[in-house]
Amino acid sequence: MSETMKRWSMETPGRQQLKLETVGKPKPGPGEVLVRVTAASLNYRDKLVIETGFGLPLTFPFTPASDMAGVVEAAGEGARRFKPGDRVISVFIPEWISGLNQGTASKPPYRTLGGVFPGVLAEYVAFPEGWFTAAPTSLDDAEASTLPVAGLTAWFALMERGGPLLGKTVLIQGTGGVSLFGLQLAKMAGAQVILTSSSDDKLVRAKGLGADHGINRNKEDWVEAVYRLTRDRGADHILEIAGGAGLGQSVQAASMGGRISVIGVLEGFEISGPVAPIMLKGLAIQGIGVGHRNAQEALTKAVDDLGLKPVIDRRYPFGDLQAALDHLDRGPFGKIVIDVG
Amino acid sequence: MSETMKRWSMETPGRQQLKLETVGKPKPGPGEVLVRVTAASLNYRDKLVIETGFGLPLTFPFTPASDMAGVVEAAGEGARRFKPGDRVISVFIPEWISGLNQGTASKPPYRTLGGVFPGVLAEYVAFPEGWFTAAPTSLDDAEASTLPVAGLTAWFALMERGGPLLGKTVLIQGTGGVSLFGLQLAKMAGAQVILTSSSDDKLVRAKGLGADHGINRNKEDWVEAVYRLTRDRGADHILEIAGGAGLGQSVQAASMGGRISVIGVLEGFEISGPVAPIMLKGLAIQGIGVGHRNAQEALTKAVDDLGLKPVIDRRYPFGDLQAALDHLDRGPFGKIVIDVG
Amino acid sequence: MSETMKRWSMETPGRQQLKLETVGKPKPGPGEVLVRVTAASLNYRDKLVIETGFGLPLTFPFTPASDMAGVVEAAGEGARRFKPGDRVISVFIPEWISGLNQGTASKPPYRTLGGVFPGVLAEYVAFPEGWFTAAPTSLDDAEASTLPVAGLTAWFALMERGGPLLGKTVLIQGTGGVSLFGLQLAKMAGAQVILTSSSDDKLVRAKGLGADHGINRNKEDWVEAVYRLTRDRGADHILEIAGGAGLGQSVQAASMGGRISVIGVLEGFEISGPVAPIMLKGLAIQGIGVGHRNAQEALTKAVDDLGLKPVIDRRYPFGDLQAALDHLDRGPFGKIVIDVG
Amino acid sequence: MSETMKRWSMETPGRQQLKLETVGKPKPGPGEVLVRVTAASLNYRDKLVIETGFGLPLTFPFTPASDMAGVVEAAGEGARRFKPGDRVISVFIPEWISGLNQGTASKPPYRTLGGVFPGVLAEYVAFPEGWFTAAPTSLDDAEASTLPVAGLTAWFALMERGGPLLGKTVLIQGTGGVSLFGLQLAKMAGAQVILTSSSDDKLVRAKGLGADHGINRNKEDWVEAVYRLTRDRGADHILEIAGGAGLGQSVQAASMGGRISVIGVLEGFEISGPVAPIMLKGLAIQGIGVGHRNAQEALTKAVDDLGLKPVIDRRYPFGDLQAALDHLDRGPFGKIVIDVG
Repeated sequence: MSETMKRWSMETPGRQQLKLETVGKPKPGPGEVLVRVTAASLNYRDKLVIETGFGLPLTFPFTPASDMAGVVEAAGEGARRFKPGDRVISVFIPEWISGLNQGTASKPPYRTLGGVFPGVLAEYVAFPEGWFTAAPTSLDDAEASTLPVAGLTAWFALMERGGPLLGKTVLIQGTGGVSLFGLQLAKMAGAQVILTSSSDDKLVRAKGLGADHGINRNKEDWVEAVYRLTRDRGADHILEIAGGAGLGQSVQAASMGGRISVIGVLEGFEISGPVAPIMLKGLAIQGIGVGHRNAQEALTKAVDDLGLKPVIDRRYPFGDLQAALDHLDRGPFGKIVIDVG
Repeated sequence: MSETMKRWSMETPGRQQLKLETVGKPKPGPGEVLVRVTAASLNYRDKLVIETGFGLPLTFPFTPASDMAGVVEAAGEGARRFKPGDRVISVFIPEWISGLNQGTASKPPYRTLGGVFPGVLAEYVAFPEGWFTAAPTSLDDAEASTLPVAGLTAWFALMERGGPLLGKTVLIQGTGGVSLFGLQLAKMAGAQVILTSSSDDKLVRAKGLGADHGINRNKEDWVEAVYRLTRDRGADHILEIAGGAGLGQSVQAASMGGRISVIGVLEGFEISGPVAPIMLKGLAIQGIGVGHRNAQEALTKAVDDLGLKPVIDRRYPFGDLQAALDHLDRGPFGKIVIDVG
Repeated sequence: MSETMKRWSMETPGRQQLKLETVGKPKPGPGEVLVRVTAASLNYRDKLVIETGFGLPLTFPFTPASDMAGVVEAAGEGARRFKPGDRVISVFIPEWISGLNQGTASKPPYRTLGGVFPGVLAEYVAFPEGWFTAAPTSLDDAEASTLPVAGLTAWFALMERGGPLLGKTVLIQGTGGVSLFGLQLAKMAGAQVILTSSSDDKLVRAKGLGADHGINRNKEDWVEAVYRLTRDRGADHILEIAGGAGLGQSVQAASMGGRISVIGVLEGFEISGPVAPIMLKGLAIQGIGVGHRNAQEALTKAVDDLGLKPVIDRRYPFGDLQAALDHLDRGPFGKIVIDVG
Repeated sequence: MSETMKRWSMETPGRQQLKLETVGKPKPGPGEVLVRVTAASLNYRDKLVIETGFGLPLTFPFTPASDMAGVVEAAGEGARRFKPGDRVISVFIPEWISGLNQGTASKPPYRTLGGVFPGVLAEYVAFPEGWFTAAPTSLDDAEASTLPVAGLTAWFALMERGGPLLGKTVLIQGTGGVSLFGLQLAKMAGAQVILTSSSDDKLVRAKGLGADHGINRNKEDWVEAVYRLTRDRGADHILEIAGGAGLGQSVQAASMGGRISVIGVLEGFEISGPVAPIMLKGLAIQGIGVGHRNAQEALTKAVDDLGLKPVIDRRYPFGDLQAALDHLDRGPFGKIVIDVG
């Protein structure tokens, strides 16, 4: 067993600072496990962290990315949660077990892998055993690596902070990782799903995954299209990925008593919308910041029971991180995965 | 029994269009009751409807105002809900009995008394019997008339669309009718209450009603004050009366897992705020559009059981409507009531 | 248009008291609609009412049964909810619109069609317009007639008083009308479904409808089987049809935090079970008394959207009521329907 | 600092097996804290464990009791949650942090202090740091020691697994520790409280603590009394302490949509009741098995904010454990506390 390993690392933010370096293989401390990383999946946030630091107090040298699948190679002293050979996936917010996350009003917590904590673009990681959960048995490692952020966000919005969806209409914006998990989960839960995109091609592919209706938001007013498709009932649950002024459209498109899960910030870090329909419809607007470890375990069980297969747009070799980040810029259909080991 | 009565009426929107006219006393049709109005309370919305029509399809001649208390004088054919002599109060949204209100996504319902339906600034009204509920026995008519909008809005936000408040911190903006009902109800439910106002005098009076802390929002940053007063836990439930960009401050002041009830539009019809704390704190932002008739009955029972006394800033004779509207412009401490009969 | 019609009627409880008589066709009073009944479906409760009166204050001559589909033939004065030609189904508890049903602690309400109110085994009924909802467009009349009790009970337990089912395990007892609706709805909502029966043949048919597992409760301990099939996680939601001491088994079979919907009284009017697992698992045991009219409208929309087809065991001509009641005694697989007109 | 300490200990179940022995003072291992115990409070369950073992896999020598307050004296390696001098209270179910407790359907967890884990009737304990929470600052040690089981059970039933209580009616059985916490919390949350007891004297004392009504269940039918006192609305939330066939009475006394928290087993380990009112009223019967650590922290904050003072019937010196157990047999009014150090 080699005593060195490769990892992506940077000394300061910036795409050009990324270096694939060879370092000593880590050893698991007390309560930790050593995991051989086989696959890592990227989130748009990883790009922002790499390029700007995202305002986070990173520790350098910094290894980016938060989502991985791998195999436990060794357990440190007192670590009993896993044994060598167990397949695991990482937990994005490792200290949030269930209920509410800890934190204060002025400083809400943002303590995540590939952020305040180290990232996973390395051949090996040694982390506390509680930072992992068992991988789904029905997925390969590349697929399994997509659950910690994209899968869990959609699950948390629809299942942990939502309600029964049978016979309800769910509106999903876009075709990124969270959106496609949302589409697949909502269909399995018996909802009608309407999906918006700026690409006819992506709408066709989304229908192949089960979407009942697609709206090209560059070609028509998507709110009016929702009125038409639902005979003016509106959407019972909206996954709001765009953010920004897009909230205003979601507010218009929502049904009486509808729910809007605020998930993304693609169009800006400030949301706005008209207050009258929020009041008259009695809307519930719910912030979703990924989810807790218990929910990841529930998602994993559901994935296995239901046979859900995550949508991977493309897989890249470990050395091709820059190409993978370029792909993120272009907007993938589903997830991008790095084959690590 | 006289065959005529007086009522406030207008042929077109505008404060100067208001006329106190003498007309025939109405007769109750099938399923209706004739009610002698004794007191009416005003809401800020009444002022907007009088001055601008508020964009509503009003029927002229139009009698404004929605909230009243009175005595049933006669029941029309088939009306069995009340008998002559019963004390009643009006229901603001008379068709909304419980659950969700009816309506569509593009046209959420706004069918209220003193709006799409006629108002109550008249010595008598003849309305369907279902548009009334029994008045609380522990309140006089002036007090009882304050429940249908101000009382019910606070109750609906805190009790029907909220959760247990014992040991929680509630932040309330301002000292209008909804705010003071919110203060009284939250204290009775065991919460710590922080109240913001631009007037030191009103803060003193609010503390007399039980507020634990007052913040003069003209003298200090109220969000920072909330951090200080709660040792940075933040407010568990915020009654957001200001609207507009004020939502952003409520989002900052809210606790992890906090709830913001969007109730008012004082500062604008568009709300906006930063999305990161909404997501990281997992906030729930809930639109409140007054409430349903079943909740008004629950509020009435609670008022009687708890001995809650609504705060009336000033009562005006029936003829002094213009002076009462001027008072609304200045911002009352609690409610303004018109003594009708 | 004939001025007479046929109806099933009795002057006193007892199977032999049932007479198919010819009477004058009813006329719709104010607020009523005249509906030509095309199909009625039977519930086990109808048999009890016919045979014993079920302790209800019936009005004689009494026409039994509560669930029907039909066509509006005429609207009485002031009735605006439907127009002639509209297809409708009846509402079992016609005064319960949404939220909680009215009633008191000592006298909970049991005001239903085919009970305190008249029944539907007649060629025509004239009832208040609010006692009907629009029929699903995707079902024929026989299928549509099965929704008011069996369909709504399963829907209310799983959707209105339940939670998201995706990836959860639902245990359903038996293969009667409520059970098979429960099976179909739970599968559409993404649950794993385990079904118990005393008949291998019925278990095979249930698997044909989507059941993941069948347990013959005469051949093995069904609680142990649930442990085995769920790897000891237990069932997240149990539709408790048996009642009686059967509750004890459901309590044992339920998962941590599980939910038991108490629906039926087949094995007795007293339920009992061990208290320790109720406390240690934190179980929620929820009484279900069919459901409200708003939920019936939601179910109807879902049936149309999802293409759910109710399971009818057998249809009988209007004159063969006694044979249909005999079939109820034997325990049908799904619903029994009477073709009325 | 002495190297020895005293503790109550037994080698086999039985009241007469209890011995006050002198043993070596424990040392905190990695992740543990050493706590000097100052007060312990007794629960009825402690008596059952001492006398019978309660069916638990106890480790002998066994030290009984689960609830204590004390002061941190030293922290083991890596323990960072507390520092020497911090006042703490124990957690009854130390592995249950929030959400649902872990466990399986056939073997629900019952891993508690003074049970599977060691107890606290000792001058010092060395436990993992996560087995403690900060003590309320407004209570002395004797009062603080009453929170982990009695206080938390009432809080969990009313706040974590209940709803808003303002204007609602809460019925509480008896005057033991859980009951009096329930009384105090429900009053602070704005409820009307009805309390049942077999002692007029205890009813008088309960009224002194705020109970609105007392019912001597030996002198009248308490269900009929609830009907009378609530004008037949019934009780919205019932703390069911009796268990056994008493559930049937609670089912009768509950309001439409009422909630029954199943907490105690005084009258038997099997509950039973009539199913018809459960269904017709739509009752929710919720098992309560104390509560999780996060809820204990919320309770502690609420106790400090609200100034709640636990009711202690009597305090006994450390050596008088047998007299304290005799008192438990007689049924205390509130809690019994042992002054340990």
